[in-house]
Amino acid sequence: MRAAIRRGTRIVCDEIADLTPGPGQVLVRTCACGICGSDLHALQFPEAITRVYEQAGVEHPMRVDGDVVFGHEFCGEILDYGPETKRRLRPGSLVTSVPRLMDRTGAHVIGYSNEFPGGYAERMLLTEAFLLEVPNGLSAVHAALTEPFAVGEHAVASANLDGAAAALVIGCGPVGLAVIAALKARGFGPVIAADFAPGRRALAEKLGADEVVDPAQQSPHARWEEFGVPMTRAGRARAIAGGAQPGRSVIFECVGVPGVLQSIMEAAPSGSQIVVAGVCMQTDRFEPSAAIAKELDFRFVLGYSAEEFARTLRNIAEGRINAAPIVTRQIGLSEVADAFAALATPGDQAKIIIEPARA
Amino acid sequence: MRAAIRRGTRIVCDEIADLTPGPGQVLVRTCACGICGSDLHALQFPEAITRVYEQAGVEHPMRVDGDVVFGHEFCGEILDYGPETKRRLRPGSLVTSVPRLMDRTGAHVIGYSNEFPGGYAERMLLTEAFLLEVPNGLSAVHAALTEPFAVGEHAVASANLDGAAAALVIGCGPVGLAVIAALKARGFGPVIAADFAPGRRALAEKLGADEVVDPAQQSPHARWEEFGVPMTRAGRARAIAGGAQPGRSVIFECVGVPGVLQSIMEAAPSGSQIVVAGVCMQTDRFEPSAAIAKELDFRFVLGYSAEEFARTLRNIAEGRINAAPIVTRQIGLSEVADAFAALATPGDQAKIIIEPARA
Repeated sequence: MRAAIRRGTRIVCDEIADLTPGPGQVLVRTCACGICGSDLHALQFPEAITRVYEQAGVEHPMRVDGDVVFGHEFCGEILDYGPETKRRLRPGSLVTSVPRLMDRTGAHVIGYSNEFPGGYAERMLLTEAFLLEVPNGLSAVHAALTEPFAVGEHAVASANLDGAAAALVIGCGPVGLAVIAALKARGFGPVIAADFAPGRRALAEKLGADEVVDPAQQSPHARWEEFGVPMTRAGRARAIAGGAQPGRSVIFECVGVPGVLQSIMEAAPSGSQIVVAGVCMQTDRFEPSAAIAKELDFRFVLGYSAEEFARTLRNIAEGRINAAPIVTRQIGLSEVADAFAALATPGDQAKIIIEPARA
Repeated sequence: MRAAIRRGTRIVCDEIADLTPGPGQVLVRTCACGICGSDLHALQFPEAITRVYEQAGVEHPMRVDGDVVFGHEFCGEILDYGPETKRRLRPGSLVTSVPRLMDRTGAHVIGYSNEFPGGYAERMLLTEAFLLEVPNGLSAVHAALTEPFAVGEHAVASANLDGAAAALVIGCGPVGLAVIAALKARGFGPVIAADFAPGRRALAEKLGADEVVDPAQQSPHARWEEFGVPMTRAGRARAIAGGAQPGRSVIFECVGVPGVLQSIMEAAPSGSQIVVAGVCMQTDRFEPSAAIAKELDFRFVLGYSAEEFARTLRNIAEGRINAAPIVTRQIGLSEVADAFAALATPGDQAKIIIEPARA
């Protein structure tokens, strides 16, 4: 079968071996698979991705030297079952799943495995026990968005929104858009979204952001005082002494490049909770003094739970998340290398979806 | 009156102007005042301390160019009252207070003010409304320890101890010792304390640490698995899948030099909460990947509330905190410069107390 393969520092289209489902496994035809920023990271900094997986304690971290078929944001159609399966869903059923494949050696990360291909291939193996049937006639392209939107659901679930006067989302790439969607899906507002790219700001509005800010024009932190959030610790103390109950600031960092945390530290209100959902793979530097003076809380997050994944699929299928706008391009396997180049420069692209059945 | 004065990059003993209490103010004779690590920082990095106070929004941040009489950990004896005071406590009463002096221009930080002397002087002005009478016949030297122990109380109150299997305190200088004391005052355990200096490890034991570790001999994180805390995210997931309810790790960073946060990130269990109580005034560097892979939470803390300060004085006076061992030296004003030199190199010194009435 055909696949777009990470081979060294390039993405190449080539034939790979056909798949046979093992015990508890299901063979699916890949209908749609998103390209994730982590895939770009993994091409550029494979050692860093491997280190993250090692640090997370996964059993089969990606080896840097071998081929890898990326793709962990997928939707497929059931073709066949392996042994020791319950076969509750009929062949032809549209399914998605958390990107974990179990075999007798443990869990493999689908999309960062040297042994099993991810969704950048015509077919994949999934774990029957993790399958979620796509409900409500949702399309495969939109069902494949469950994974990136689950990242936002997890980031928001990890935040403490009690007493939050507003949420500020820094960066409106796929992670930031998913955070906006998860905030609005639970009725939280106002949500302020900041991005330099006009196309991404427009997407943020479509996903439900109450306001969008161009950081080149205005600090995204300029509005906190209007929302009743004092900027300084002394200001908060004065507000409380005056009988007020000032709100708190919650900031989602969804950029993931060095220097962003420092810029947030400098500009954020005292007492902010910063949920770090951007995945920065390089060394970062910061001046702790601002974090100390403001008593900032940095909560680093990654991934999602199975429950958050399933909740996100329901949110998309039942219309609480308007996933459609984030798909900015749909391509075949032969166009993947070009798509990586397009995504490498910040711009108006959000989610590019691979449909392996395309020419 | 005499004072030990920060003048440029030196501490000098000199005469300064006598004080007259203004409205709402009280004149006290300084009985005892501790030397804080922040005072050493403020001598070495005055711009950094000023920046912290500006970032905290205080009204009169220390000017770098003027003289300053340090000293924010004090106990004094009431000499006289200014106008518009209630005079509830008799002259001669022993008092302490949060280091804030109010005048008609707002709040001044006692100990980092160019206008009002801190406790490195024979007399000080305090705010009547903030006075706490020293109870139970507690000595002035021990009452002066309220402030540094309140720092530990605040750090512990800022931590989420729910489900914490143990607490690890990295660094057993005054901040770390205060954290240990606050943890034990509320009955929390086990508390593991780590420091390279044998004298500080001995103090940690006296303050109630259940175990002490020499990081040169053994990683302070080596015990987490014994306490039922899985090291990795995958390990936690496996433990939960196996029906266990694994505990969480809470780590107090009480060193405050560059590189410590990175070393904690690398060694800490997945899901750790790290309360950053060490005050690092230099640029720090870190690799976010470990923080991301482990979903670490960094809570930076500074200072304390008035309630935490008052609770700490009660904890010391009523014996829930055994403050005495941390006083490693008592000196007069003329010895302050020498004491700064002694504290600048890590060693077995903990708290040096100035008694201005000494020769």
